[in-house]
This record gives sequence, C-alpha cells and structure tokens, in this order.
Amino acid sequence: MIEPRTLKGFRDYLPEDQILRERLLDKVRHVYRSYGFVPIDTPALEYTEILLGKGGEESDRLIYRFRDHGGRDVALRFDLTVPFARFAAQHINQLGTPFKRYHMGPVWRGENTAHGRFREFWQCDFDIIGTTSNAADLETVLVIHDLMTTLGFERFSIRINNRLVLNGLLEEIDLAEQTTNVLRALDKLGKIGREGVIAEMAEKGVPAEQAQRVLDMATIEGSNDDILMRLAKEFGSSDKAMEGIRRLRELLAAASAAGIHQDRLQIDVSIARGLDYYTGTIYETFLDDLPQIGSVCSGGRYDNLASLFTKQVLPGVGASLGLDRLLAAMDGLHLNAKTGATAPVLIIQFIEEKLGEYQRLGRTLRAAGIGAEVFPEAKKIGQQLKYADRRGFRLAVLAGPDELAANQVKVKNLATGQEEVVAADELVAVVKKALGENGSDGG
Amino acid sequence: MIEPRTLKGFRDYLPEDQILRERLLDKVRHVYRSYGFVPIDTPALEYTEILLGKGGEESDRLIYRFRDHGGRDVALRFDLTVPFARFAAQHINQLGTPFKRYHMGPVWRGENTAHGRFREFWQCDFDIIGTTSNAADLETVLVIHDLMTTLGFERFSIRINNRLVLNGLLEEIDLAEQTTNVLRALDKLGKIGREGVIAEMAEKGVPAEQAQRVLDMATIEGSNDDILMRLAKEFGSSDKAMEGIRRLRELLAAASAAGIHQDRLQIDVSIARGLDYYTGTIYETFLDDLPQIGSVCSGGRYDNLASLFTKQVLPGVGASLGLDRLLAAMDGLHLNAKTGATAPVLIIQFIEEKLGEYQRLGRTLRAAGIGAEVFPEAKKIGQQLKYADRRGFRLAVLAGPDELAANQVKVKNLATGQEEVVAADELVAVVKKALGENGSDGG
Repeated sequence: MIEPRTLKGFRDYLPEDQILRERLLDKVRHVYRSYGFVPIDTPALEYTEILLGKGGEESDRLIYRFRDHGGRDVALRFDLTVPFARFAAQHINQLGTPFKRYHMGPVWRGENTAHGRFREFWQCDFDIIGTTSNAADLETVLVIHDLMTTLGFERFSIRINNRLVLNGLLEEIDLAEQTTNVLRALDKLGKIGREGVIAEMAEKGVPAEQAQRVLDMATIEGSNDDILMRLAKEFGSSDKAMEGIRRLRELLAAASAAGIHQDRLQIDVSIARGLDYYTGTIYETFLDDLPQIGSVCSGGRYDNLASLFTKQVLPGVGASLGLDRLLAAMDGLHLNAKTGATAPVLIIQFIEEKLGEYQRLGRTLRAAGIGAEVFPEAKKIGQQLKYADRRGFRLAVLAGPDELAANQVKVKNLATGQEEVVAADELVAVVKKALGENGSDGG
Repeated sequence: MIEPRTLKGFRDYLPEDQILRERLLDKVRHVYRSYGFVPIDTPALEYTEILLGKGGEESDRLIYRFRDHGGRDVALRFDLTVPFARFAAQHINQLGTPFKRYHMGPVWRGENTAHGRFREFWQCDFDIIGTTSNAADLETVLVIHDLMTTLGFERFSIRINNRLVLNGLLEEIDLAEQTTNVLRALDKLGKIGREGVIAEMAEKGVPAEQAQRVLDMATIEGSNDDILMRLAKEFGSSDKAMEGIRRLRELLAAASAAGIHQDRLQIDVSIARGLDYYTGTIYETFLDDLPQIGSVCSGGRYDNLASLFTKQVLPGVGASLGLDRLLAAMDGLHLNAKTGATAPVLIIQFIEEKLGEYQRLGRTLRAAGIGAEVFPEAKKIGQQLKYADRRGFRLAVLAGPDELAANQVKVKNLATGQEEVVAADELVAVVKKALGENGSDGG
C-alpha cells in the first residue's frame, strides 16, 4: 500500500475552501471583464531560457527545472509576467494595441516553506500594454478599487507613488548609481524601521546624510495635496521628479472626478517595490484592519515589457492580486461564509423504485435555475437529513407514498425545521420563495 | 535577443479562444453544481510513486517526471483520476460519503504530437463515490445529458453498457482469462471493423468461433427493449450478465421516468472501454453530426477507487468531459460565436482633460452590471472606433465638448451605425435597451 500524501509545500483544496476560491476567482474575473480586459492562457511549462533569460544558466533553487524526454531544458513558470512578455512578443502584431489582458493561474516556486509559504499558488494579473497614457494608470487604480469593494472589503487604502519622484531625488543628491540598493533598503522601512534602513544603506556605501534625506522625502506625511506641494517645492529643479509629480497630480484629480473617495487613494513616497522593472506609477493595497499581511494587490508602470524577446517597445501598467493572501484576509475578517454545498436543495430518496420521479423533481428545480441533489440511496430519512445538515443544504424535499399519490411534496426548511406540504406544481415557486435571492446557489 | 516560442505540444490561448474556454468551463461548472457536486483541487505535481504506483519504476515516456531540489522523484499529473484516488484515501473520513466531486484542470502527457495531440490539456471530471446504488449511475446519465444540452448540442446520444454483461458472456464461453485482450480488441471495432477485431483476438489466441460469438453479442441492434430481451435470452444462465441486464433495465426506466427522451440513451454492447478499471455501467457520448471525433464524455462505474492507497473500499461512478475535443466540435458545428470583447461598451476618450468624467460614465455603467472600457488615449475618433470594431464592442459612447456642456452623451450602435443623443442620466437605460438580454456580457 502506498501512503497517500502531497509534496511539501503543496496542498489539496477541500470543497469548503475550493468553493470559496471559485467564488473569489469569479468575482475577480467579473471585475476585470467589466473594464474590457480579455483573458489569455499560457503553458505551465516553458523553455528555461524564456523564463530565466540567457543569464539564467546557474541553477536557481526557486525554479522547478528539468530536461524533458526530448532533452529540452524546461521549467514550470514562476510568475505570469515573464510568460506574458513572451506571449506579447509573439502575438502583439496580431492582437494590436492597446491590449488589456488578465491571466489567472497557478505558478510554482521552490520556496522555503518555513513561514507557511507554498510552492504552488495562484496569481491573478491584469495589464494594459501599448500605451504610456496616464489613463491606463488611472484605470489600474479603478480596477484595484473595484476588486476590493467587490470582494467585500470596506476599509482599505491604495497607496501610490511614482518612481520618477524617487529617481529624480536620487539624481539630485548624486545617488543615481545606488538606485537599486537605496530602493531595496527603503522597501524594508515597514519591517526594519528608519535606523535599519540607514544602516543597510550605510553598508552599501550611502553616507548617513544622504540616507537621511531620502528617508525624509520618503516619509512626508499629510494630505495628498500637502505631499504634492512639498515634493514640488523640494524638486522644482528636477525635470524627472516634476514629471512624476505631474502624473500623480493628474491621476488623483481624475480619480476624484471619476468618483473615487479620496481616503482610499494615498500618496506614499516610501513605496518603492524593489524591482528595477518599474519606471512610473507604483501601487500597493493595504487593508486597514489587517495591515500586517502586507499588500494584497501590487503593481506599477514599466517602460518596456518584452525587451528580452522583441525590439518592439511595449510600455504598460498592471498589477497582480494575491489570491491566497486575500482568502486568508477574508477568513480573518469573517467575510467568508463557508459551506460544503453547491446546491441548496436535497431531495430525499424515500422509495427506491420511485428514483425516476425524484430525479424528475430535481430536473424541474434545475430547469428553474435551482440546484437540487437527489440522495443516491433509499436510506432511513434521518440519515439522509443528517447528510443534508452536514453538507449545508438549506431545504429538503420529501415525497413519500402518500405525497406521491396525492401529487404533493413536503418542503422542509433545514435551519428552522419548518415543514410545508405543497402541490407538486407549486414546488418551484415555494422553493424560490424559501431561498430568497440566493436561489441559484447553495453558497 | 531570445526567440519567443512555446514548447512543442504546448500552446497559448489568445483572447478569442480563452473567452470561449472560460464560457464553456462556466457552463460545465454550473451543471455540476446544479446536481450538488462540489469542487476540489489537487497539486499539479505529485510523488511519482503516487501517480504511477510502486510498479511504475521503469521510465514512462508519457509522464513528465524529474527530481526536485530535495531529491524527490516527482511528476506532473497525467489525469485527474489518480490524484482523486489519493485525495479520497486521505480525506474521505473527514468528508463522509456519499461524496460527489468535480475537478477541472490541466494535465500533462508527453504525447506524440504527430496527430495534433497536445501535451497540456484540460479535463473536467465528476464522480460520485461511496455508493453502489444505481441512482448514482442514473445521475451520471443526467449530468452528461445536461452538459450536452447546456453547451448547445441538440443531436447527440449517450451510449451505455454494463461490464457485467460482457464479463458474463466471457465466463460463459470460457474466455474470462482473456478479458483484457478481448475488450481491448472490441474497443477498436469502430476503427478496424469486424475482421480486424477477429484478427487481433486470434493473435492473442482467441479461436475465431468464440471471437465471432463475442462480436455477435456486441453488435446486437434494435431498440433498447429489443437488445435487453435478446441479451436476457442469451444469458439467462449467467447471474453476472443478468445483474448487468437488470441494472441497465432499471437505469433506462428511471431515466425515462425522469423525462429523458429515449432516443438520447442507447444500449451499445460493443462499448467496452479497454480499462480493467471499470466494473459496471459504461458511458460514451457521441455527436450525431460529428461521429468521427469520437466520444466527448466517457466514464463508468468502478468497484474500488483507491485500493492503492487505502483499505477502505470506495465504489463509485463518474465521467470525464474532454474540453478541447468539445471546443473543436463546437467550432465544427458553428456553436461558437467568437468575440474579442468581454465588455460591450467602449467609451471614446474625446478630451484628455475629461478622463475622469469618462471613467465616471464607465463606473455608472459597471455599477449597473454593464461592462464598459474607456479608450486609454485621446486619439482621433476614427482610430478609436476602428479599435472598437476590431475588438467586437457593440456600442460606443461619445461625449465631446458640446455633449458634456449639455450633460448629454451620444450612443452609437457599432453594428448599424445608428446614433442617438441622450441625457447622461438616461445612459444606463438606453444602453440596457440597446444591448437586450446580453447586457452584462460582450460575448
């Protein structure tokens, strides 16, 4: 006998959790589609060269990499961004620009599992490519906003910044060549504090005075207007920083005109996202009630998506939603009503010989958009009702010999225990009324 | 520069195709849920021992198999049945029986790509385990029936058989030990014809007379009642065959009582499915207009799902829908109305400075459940309308300086070219009317 087990860092999703994941993915998809984003899919497996670039020869422990039967050096994708870059290089001439895609699927990383990290997890990415227009940056804010409200979060803030502001500052104080080190250190501000950031910058050779200046700028507080005014005053001499400030100002004004409440969109000069990749607007999203879980939706603007694969310059902006982090947050805030049922009605199998009749009742309910399961065995009624309770069904339909003879059925509310005998042809109406608005879904 | 390309046997899904796949998966999911099946998910990667069993040591070219960073012998799942067996062995005590699950996801096989086969494809499986009741066999028929009608197929037949009938016959004519060889040969009847089947059986040592007898039984024609009567007459002496006949008869009667048209459910004694795994009812589903593509939904009853992993006996019945074969069939029958748009309305960006206003219109439409995209650049109107045409938008909303000043918008039907100027606060009503029932979806 073989011991049934999953690999370390991998997991099964049992129905209660998978029902929640499907519901979440549906809602996320709905938001993306409502803005005209279109879906794509790419293979789980790609040439390693595509995923890691030509410099990726040294073995990277984070990647699941192997040789296939044909001797090809292949790997499982570790994010959805690199496959999108490859996809865009291959297909953008056919698709045309601007091109707005979403992509939801699993990625694999050989992560250290010590801190509850998983080696297989889902990402939900959306991007607008082929335009440098600030309209796309605004739309990214609106999509993040709608994702949060659609998922039931009421207290959250989208923090935005523009890399041009920080880049301008670093040029002004002669730290341009230290950009990566400075941003990496700054990115840890929340975790290691001011002194920690200064210490880390010092290690990289950044003098304390300059480090202090960076931190002062990064931690300006106040209203968005205050911050913009202060930045403009400090950086009047840097064209780069002023362009970043102009774009932030324009984005805030348009978001406000579009009806986004100003409390939900906050300038935060400290968010840098330690990726060289981003070049303009940067986004992070925090839940007011669970700040410790970090950003649940992050992204930014980049100058060129697919420079590894094509000479065609493809600027764009987008963000990625962390599905598992969000599910954990929703659990934490009790936004997830768990259920083990996908259909609200269980039809009791009273008499084995009448199975066809019970399934006919089921078909009648399903045709009216109401999920209905027929218990597969003519067990004792008590056992069937116990099953209904355990799974989370809301109503049971019972039809014994007397009811069948009279062309009637009994509808039992499993929460209250109330029973009602109704004519068989009133079943749909009675069940719809009993279920209220959620008639079509057990969840 | 790295050449952007996918691996042989793998493919990208561009929006037009991915929109269709998402729609199909949604419909399939809806049918499964309407019968109370619940979703699960399992990892893409498992211990090779789990997927191939302990005898799977010799390298199987069909499997993507490698050693991970921890030296574990791992492989990508090649179907959803083996992972379900492992899952059931691990979790069934917590979940309880009967347990009805669906599972939709990609699987990987190192197939020969010569005949247009792919190495990554999706399966959509559903199973009822923990019961031997014929009610579960009936429900499998009903689910297949609803899958077909929901996907828009009108002319199809579900062919059923019961392995007990064939097993009984083989016992009767002393071929029980040749069961696997006989069924494998029989399974090819459609492809290689009677003579081919007899030749293949002869190779395995089955005398021509017995092979002839098997073929005679397998190809009985007539109504379901005729076939059942003929089988009962031939096999009255085999308890096994008679039990198979009884279950087929009961299943047909219950399906008829449940309202399934008898033409859609046909006994076909020749379907054997060359798997030792099945022990009872067997299902295949053929499209009347595309018989050559083979069965689009197949499955059967088995005595014990997870014998490799647990001593707990788990009988069950289920089937698997071939997503890609179905999509090809739907293309062939022109059931797929292709579109590149997920939102029906494009809002033209007339004046860059009014971007916030355009997104406010967009938010109004989205709040009413109508997808609306704002073009990201204030390009010439003609260019924006061309984009709308190419993507497949149905309506354009235009608001230039005059309209904005008068608090009006222009709604343009992109199919007819008709334009209508309406008050801004009538926009939702006008758009809903113009879109008809499909208001919430570009497809």
